[in-house]
Amino acid sequence: MGVESDVKPDSVALHPVGAAGAPEVMGIFGTGDLGRSLGLRLLQSGYRVVYGSRRPHSCGPVPQGAEVASHAEAAKEASLIFVCVHREHYEFLTTLTPHLKGKVLVDLSNNLKKGIYPEANAAYLQRLVPGADVVKGLNTLSAWALQNGLLAGKQVYLCGNSANAKQAVSEMATKLGLTVLDRGSLSAARELEDFPLRLFPEWRLPLLVAACLMGFFYFYLLIRDVIYAYVETGQDISYRIMISLANKVFPIVSLVMLSLCYLPGCIAAFLQLYRGTKYKRFPNWLDRWMLCRKQMGLVALGLALLHAIYTFIIPIRYAVRHKLISRVVDENNKTTPFYFDNKEAWGTDSFYVLGILGFFLYLLLGLTSLPSVGGSLSWREFSFVQSKLGHLTLSICTAHGYIYGWNKFLRPSTYKWYTPPGYMLCLIVPSVVLVLKILLLLPCCVSVGWSHFCMYDSQTLKKNLYIYNQL
Amino acid sequence: MGVESDVKPDSVALHPVGAAGAPEVMGIFGTGDLGRSLGLRLLQSGYRVVYGSRRPHSCGPVPQGAEVASHAEAAKEASLIFVCVHREHYEFLTTLTPHLKGKVLVDLSNNLKKGIYPEANAAYLQRLVPGADVVKGLNTLSAWALQNGLLAGKQVYLCGNSANAKQAVSEMATKLGLTVLDRGSLSAARELEDFPLRLFPEWRLPLLVAACLMGFFYFYLLIRDVIYAYVETGQDISYRIMISLANKVFPIVSLVMLSLCYLPGCIAAFLQLYRGTKYKRFPNWLDRWMLCRKQMGLVALGLALLHAIYTFIIPIRYAVRHKLISRVVDENNKTTPFYFDNKEAWGTDSFYVLGILGFFLYLLLGLTSLPSVGGSLSWREFSFVQSKLGHLTLSICTAHGYIYGWNKFLRPSTYKWYTPPGYMLCLIVPSVVLVLKILLLLPCCVSVGWSHFCMYDSQTLKKNLYIYNQL
Amino acid sequence: MGVESDVKPDSVALHPVGAAGAPEVMGIFGTGDLGRSLGLRLLQSGYRVVYGSRRPHSCGPVPQGAEVASHAEAAKEASLIFVCVHREHYEFLTTLTPHLKGKVLVDLSNNLKKGIYPEANAAYLQRLVPGADVVKGLNTLSAWALQNGLLAGKQVYLCGNSANAKQAVSEMATKLGLTVLDRGSLSAARELEDFPLRLFPEWRLPLLVAACLMGFFYFYLLIRDVIYAYVETGQDISYRIMISLANKVFPIVSLVMLSLCYLPGCIAAFLQLYRGTKYKRFPNWLDRWMLCRKQMGLVALGLALLHAIYTFIIPIRYAVRHKLISRVVDENNKTTPFYFDNKEAWGTDSFYVLGILGFFLYLLLGLTSLPSVGGSLSWREFSFVQSKLGHLTLSICTAHGYIYGWNKFLRPSTYKWYTPPGYMLCLIVPSVVLVLKILLLLPCCVSVGWSHFCMYDSQTLKKNLYIYNQL
Repeated sequence: MGVESDVKPDSVALHPVGAAGAPEVMGIFGTGDLGRSLGLRLLQSGYRVVYGSRRPHSCGPVPQGAEVASHAEAAKEASLIFVCVHREHYEFLTTLTPHLKGKVLVDLSNNLKKGIYPEANAAYLQRLVPGADVVKGLNTLSAWALQNGLLAGKQVYLCGNSANAKQAVSEMATKLGLTVLDRGSLSAARELEDFPLRLFPEWRLPLLVAACLMGFFYFYLLIRDVIYAYVETGQDISYRIMISLANKVFPIVSLVMLSLCYLPGCIAAFLQLYRGTKYKRFPNWLDRWMLCRKQMGLVALGLALLHAIYTFIIPIRYAVRHKLISRVVDENNKTTPFYFDNKEAWGTDSFYVLGILGFFLYLLLGLTSLPSVGGSLSWREFSFVQSKLGHLTLSICTAHGYIYGWNKFLRPSTYKWYTPPGYMLCLIVPSVVLVLKILLLLPCCVSVGWSHFCMYDSQTLKKNLYIYNQL
Repeated sequence: MGVESDVKPDSVALHPVGAAGAPEVMGIFGTGDLGRSLGLRLLQSGYRVVYGSRRPHSCGPVPQGAEVASHAEAAKEASLIFVCVHREHYEFLTTLTPHLKGKVLVDLSNNLKKGIYPEANAAYLQRLVPGADVVKGLNTLSAWALQNGLLAGKQVYLCGNSANAKQAVSEMATKLGLTVLDRGSLSAARELEDFPLRLFPEWRLPLLVAACLMGFFYFYLLIRDVIYAYVETGQDISYRIMISLANKVFPIVSLVMLSLCYLPGCIAAFLQLYRGTKYKRFPNWLDRWMLCRKQMGLVALGLALLHAIYTFIIPIRYAVRHKLISRVVDENNKTTPFYFDNKEAWGTDSFYVLGILGFFLYLLLGLTSLPSVGGSLSWREFSFVQSKLGHLTLSICTAHGYIYGWNKFLRPSTYKWYTPPGYMLCLIVPSVVLVLKILLLLPCCVSVGWSHFCMYDSQTLKKNLYIYNQL
Repeated sequence: MGVESDVKPDSVALHPVGAAGAPEVMGIFGTGDLGRSLGLRLLQSGYRVVYGSRRPHSCGPVPQGAEVASHAEAAKEASLIFVCVHREHYEFLTTLTPHLKGKVLVDLSNNLKKGIYPEANAAYLQRLVPGADVVKGLNTLSAWALQNGLLAGKQVYLCGNSANAKQAVSEMATKLGLTVLDRGSLSAARELEDFPLRLFPEWRLPLLVAACLMGFFYFYLLIRDVIYAYVETGQDISYRIMISLANKVFPIVSLVMLSLCYLPGCIAAFLQLYRGTKYKRFPNWLDRWMLCRKQMGLVALGLALLHAIYTFIIPIRYAVRHKLISRVVDENNKTTPFYFDNKEAWGTDSFYVLGILGFFLYLLLGLTSLPSVGGSLSWREFSFVQSKLGHLTLSICTAHGYIYGWNKFLRPSTYKWYTPPGYMLCLIVPSVVLVLKILLLLPCCVSVGWSHFCMYDSQTLKKNLYIYNQL
């Protein structure tokens, strides 16, 4: 027995401890990586560990201080047994049913895909060994996290039909430094088994919206720019597909996505004002929209970053250098002097400054979305960043868009084939959001408007509306 | 009763449990969002939950498994009651005083602003129901965090006059996965209620310093550049206000702020050497300065980032392109050949390289300020990054500044209207810091100097000095 | 006694509590910063605190509510005593041995360097006071973290020869919000004392590899570019050392480092296929390589960032502007018109676009390496990002390299002095990795190949191989 295992455990309710200081025994079936890592941690937390193995004498290395026995013997010694074998091998447990009667079996298994078995692994295990108390849980821990001691404060889920069994597993997990959350009866096992198989569910809608918008604007601009030039003047400017078009589509979609973060808050406020009550739930589509605002904002930030990088490399592009050189050659052949246009200098510089400041604020917003940064903010700080700073970002980026088109709005040549340019289309949603926002800030709406600064938290939103509606 | 509620609670001291396995009862007054979210979590953690409501039969949805009763009945059943109503509605509790005698009342309320009531909410509650044991706490949790199970490892504060009541609340909070910190008697309630209303208190001084410095340098450069040009030569170069001036002010203030991060450490070291003891406290202004070094550094990083972006877009500015074209046109009309100046190429390239490397190190310093990154470093690693790397960054950025002015220091035309240019002013503080630093590294000071590498931790500083002074 | 100290402690096993509600007493030897900070936290957690001091009446400020006594008296009152003095002063404890008999002594000390004493501090303490139960631990906490309440969920280590003593310290630490991990007997004390002195051990190999590669490629390119030009044509282009060469070395080494992240996974897969079993351990060099893939990837990201910044400032460099102006002057003197080369425009634009997209994906990979972001991903999400996205990044960056040399591969002038240019050399490793990857994706290897997407987790890798080998 290793030096680590001489700590007296503090859970005496379920697992009687012999002499004072004798450590509680934990059984582990399976000596694979997960079993070995788990055993090491249990030893470190002061438990005695007994492995159950088909070949107790040739099962490969186990952590120093652990014992190896046959499955039946291990089951006799331990009242809590971790099943660290794959579901395909559960069958052998049927031969052990007499030894497992009344024992707590912890099912830590995961599957490689969703829905490959009709039954949850834990439910299958319970069916195979009806006399035991099966608890599903800890399956979100990787062998790697276990081995590297990255457990502190991690949240794990449990479910099972026996409250006492769950209590025993919960106490063990707390000693390992985990935070346990009870998810109810064994019928929740499938849900727990699907946890490690999630693949960005909350990112799907924002990414889909972004992809659709990008597809639409890309083809719209392709027609207006490249195809128009080819049809009307016969010019081949297809090389613009790679960078010039993308550098128009990215900022357009980024601005639309950012304004879509703030639109549902405005809609909700007007809905509440119209209904005059907070006791009705928001429609489902609005709730769903509100819940993916963070992801929408981050997609918008990603596109803004791409826009920034595309802009930085403009001057080293071949086409741009070529144009500059041609320009100079033309200039040289002209006889008129080359004037400096002060208005043009002011205009383009303002345009760039607004873009830079907007991007900088965007980055600050994104930083507070990092779990560790956001978690260290107070509610008021978070709300300040996400609402005040968020709306400031939206205003600055919208102004960036307006300045881009400042002297082109009334020029007929802007409307090729009677279509408005992309930047005009993309200014519609942000302008609407900002107008709604200003309406909500008018005195008659100010208290309800106040409650809509909050970007992420539809619950807080409702709570604040509650205060308003009580007045 | 839901499937979640059949876990045996482990706190038996205050709340007697009937039959083995019967869950402890928690009362919640108020069925708003906070009440519902809290109830859901309590059910998930294995408690029985009884809501107290004015209208038990029409109070809106409650989580599955919870019961709803009148306030009086709920108070009878539960020994621990969460008050999830707004302070304005506390009055009704006076009618329940007989039922609340000896019960633990948890006040979770927050206010919308500081100081709108003369008394803390919890103190007011205790005055209304003197027979109950009021505990203030958990008020930093949002309904949103409760609903989404984001509690694992979160730190919450408690205060109250009854130790037993605090113990009971603390046990409940621990079961919910929270880490509890006792802040003493109920007189601390106001402090707890002000926590969620904090608005970046530690950022105020650094932002104020940065704003003052930026204001000063902006006007200084405005006079030297734009107004000087207008007065002396009649040129209108007002367009430079937008980008050119800002791109001088940002790096200047950034460098000054960065050196202000390291200045207090040097001052403290010399103060200790002068005093010859560590047993005297530092003056208050020095302590306060030391405590905001992290924020100062991050403001400096933000300004450095803006400087970098402003620099990247230089070549696409109208004014810059115009100048380039004019330059070529001039060159063309000249008859002298256009020579390549190797010294100029070396100079500007060194200038850029130092700027890039300085910015890169700045970013690394900023990364370790992220709570999750900094928290995973050992003390020595953190100290290495913040001191060795920090001083390296300062040296490189200062060199970047010196190279900028390399051949201009002795040129009379640099001193327009007898004023030194901005970059010379901004080099004063960093140069002083670096000289002090080198003095501290001299053999006679080396052991005390060693202790000043540490950027953030004035306590460690004192501890290290302690070692030195003991020798 | 302060208001904070009236909480009833819940650990009654070792330290008898008098009347109900009387707080447990903790002793602290030493009133330095660490002692004072620790005392404050213990008071806040409801303990009574007694300081032991040589000069009880002139020992400087202690936290409000704490008592000060002589060492002997403090030892009499408390059963658990924190030793907050430096190792050099431990000697005085020998005079207290009768008072310390049977007490738990917690050694929190750290050293300034590794190996300056032949014995661990805690072992030395145990030798001085053999009658006491010494527990080493909590030494990774700084006085600063203690004072600022940054303890929630932090993992601390304990070791000691007495299980009961460790249990008592563990209970106290849990009350302070810490997560405790038992590291065994007192012989582990040296290991614990070395923890705060670690200096990026896992970064050394990746940084060494990067430094060697950068040195090699730097000299290789110096010879091929600068020295070749000087020897063959007599041109002095030494200014290129600063930026042009660095901007070739950074992307080259970055790409090689990125492919080195993915190479060990491929080697492991082929090794398993060749051996036909997972029961043999990987060779040590492969294990070590796999464990530093995260750091390799981050070094590659840093170099890619430098490459990006170096690229952005290209157009404002003196040499580049000079070349542009010379070019125009030449163009002006020519009589042939200046044509636009559509193929060239497509080529350079594709080159830039691949670079930008590769860098963007690089950044996403880097983001998920942040502990707080990576920790919030499910296993499948993490694996998706690190494998699918990682290989996509590698493919795009490799394509970026191929396009750079697209029309130069067959041109004899490319091979100066019969050496291939740097970008050709750097394409070898990524190409090999991608070919191996594609081989593993062929139907015959697909199930084993699937298991190699995972970037960081050699354990998961083996687990997946296990499944494969069982089929």
